[in-house]
Amino acid sequence: MIATRLTTRFGLDHPIVSAPMAAAAGGRLAAAVSAGGGLGLIGGGYGDAAWIRDQVDLAGPSQVGIGFITWSVTEGVLAEALERRPAAVMLSFGDPGALGAMVRKAGVPLILQVQTLDQARAALDAGADAIVAQGAEGGGHGLRRATMTLVPEVADLLAARAPETLLLAAGGIADGRGLAAALMLGADGALVGSRFWAAEEALVARGLVSAAMKATGDATVRTTVPDAARGLTWPGEFTIRSMRNAFSDRWRGQEHQLRHTPQAQAAWRDAMADGDAETGTPIVGEATGLIRDCVPAVEILARMVAEAEDHLARGQKMTGR
Amino acid sequence: MIATRLTTRFGLDHPIVSAPMAAAAGGRLAAAVSAGGGLGLIGGGYGDAAWIRDQVDLAGPSQVGIGFITWSVTEGVLAEALERRPAAVMLSFGDPGALGAMVRKAGVPLILQVQTLDQARAALDAGADAIVAQGAEGGGHGLRRATMTLVPEVADLLAARAPETLLLAAGGIADGRGLAAALMLGADGALVGSRFWAAEEALVARGLVSAAMKATGDATVRTTVPDAARGLTWPGEFTIRSMRNAFSDRWRGQEHQLRHTPQAQAAWRDAMADGDAETGTPIVGEATGLIRDCVPAVEILARMVAEAEDHLARGQKMTGR
Repeated sequence: MIATRLTTRFGLDHPIVSAPMAAAAGGRLAAAVSAGGGLGLIGGGYGDAAWIRDQVDLAGPSQVGIGFITWSVTEGVLAEALERRPAAVMLSFGDPGALGAMVRKAGVPLILQVQTLDQARAALDAGADAIVAQGAEGGGHGLRRATMTLVPEVADLLAARAPETLLLAAGGIADGRGLAAALMLGADGALVGSRFWAAEEALVARGLVSAAMKATGDATVRTTVPDAARGLTWPGEFTIRSMRNAFSDRWRGQEHQLRHTPQAQAAWRDAMADGDAETGTPIVGEATGLIRDCVPAVEILARMVAEAEDHLARGQKMTGR
Repeated sequence: MIATRLTTRFGLDHPIVSAPMAAAAGGRLAAAVSAGGGLGLIGGGYGDAAWIRDQVDLAGPSQVGIGFITWSVTEGVLAEALERRPAAVMLSFGDPGALGAMVRKAGVPLILQVQTLDQARAALDAGADAIVAQGAEGGGHGLRRATMTLVPEVADLLAARAPETLLLAAGGIADGRGLAAALMLGADGALVGSRFWAAEEALVARGLVSAAMKATGDATVRTTVPDAARGLTWPGEFTIRSMRNAFSDRWRGQEHQLRHTPQAQAAWRDAMADGDAETGTPIVGEATGLIRDCVPAVEILARMVAEAEDHLARGQKMTGR
């Protein structure tokens, strides 16, 4: 057991939230994380209303939350999600604007993800109940700051401006060591992506997970190739961390051309669905080097907490206090 | 007091080593860190024999070590350094080759810095007594991996292949939270650069330190502009983290041209000497957002340890054990 302000405020057993990974974090994964004592978030991603409805149904009566990519979700989709009374709504990547106000008005806890100190200030202005400070070592979209410095710097900002706002660390946290480190850096808990991406319940083709399990953390790269491959247009500053392979090398620097090469795009899509990690690019962070098996989410939670407890106990002994 | 295998093995009071920052970490800084209970390393940098001799003399009878950039130091310079019986020799950036063997033969502890898992394997092959796993959030030269994932992944490698080898975490560690986090990630201690770059004893123009103290961690960038400005040719994969300013923006993407613009190079050199942070580029990491004053090294050490102890004690309480 690890008790923090996060566990108290959200009624959790563990200070662990699963990241709302677009497409990968469906209702089953979110429900499993919540059932295991953490807080599971459905990856509402690009705001596909029908998919979201299905996944919320799959989560059943579990207390799960849902996350959206700010610039891609409509007020209509958000309103429908709020009607289901999620445990929290997380908005990532950019100014939450009117969406943040909608969440607050509904009385649902608002989690805002930030990747810079400037964004953290904006998130406070938007009335975040919790801020996720996410480092660029994480899988998927992000910017450049690292977890190790961003988390304590945001913690200092919160201490000065909004001490009641919760802080979650994200990016590179896949085991109990990372969780313990996050708590030392001043976070109230961790938001975990890649490790749950490799959970049994995740909506990820097994071949992609197998490739990630074999890879070291050196094998990932920040790139825009996966977005070009699926025709997504993200704001220019964002890149997506994923595994480097023959496909990403082939199209590196030629992303514009890839956007106009339907055959290559189809090959990528098929590979992602089929679990072919030579052409498909597993969307996983540097923490892939710490992931060596694909197990149920409840097992991931139990291991993380036990390992973090061990390390925290060992840390205390180092001080001789 | 924080006791780890590092403090035992090197006879230190604190598990903190100061980074051998080229030009900035002279004998006075190294001696101050060692006198304060850590291990100070002189920044032997590009192997200027006369400068190194002066700095070793300045360190006086203190037990300090010395660090070199592997590809730039000659066997002659290393041999002279070894004759002074340093507390350790640290080699950074690339294959230590024959230099590592010289250090080992002299019976001096060999510290090897790595930035990828592959380099960590090579460092074990080279017989490192301690490995520094350095994340790209750190100031100065580096690659791409982040501290948060690199440290535990190297820890796993050491546990499997060389459990007696010490592990130091580097990159983004500037206060007690970072130190405590490093210990949780599996390190035996921390190698600290930027925070000591802003120590009173560092050989850094005050204006540069002042600019860093005001900056947030968002203000740094990985670039090759400072190397182009001083005509240094590093292996292509390395970039140098430093503060972004008008000068670095002006020459971004035009580094080759900068190498052939003596006037701009002279302006940069003068600015670095004079402490003009608009043209000179303070060589500091993302941790600059955690640095708010310029104090003696002994004060930095005392604060880091006290804060780390507090956080480790708090961590233990979270577990309820």
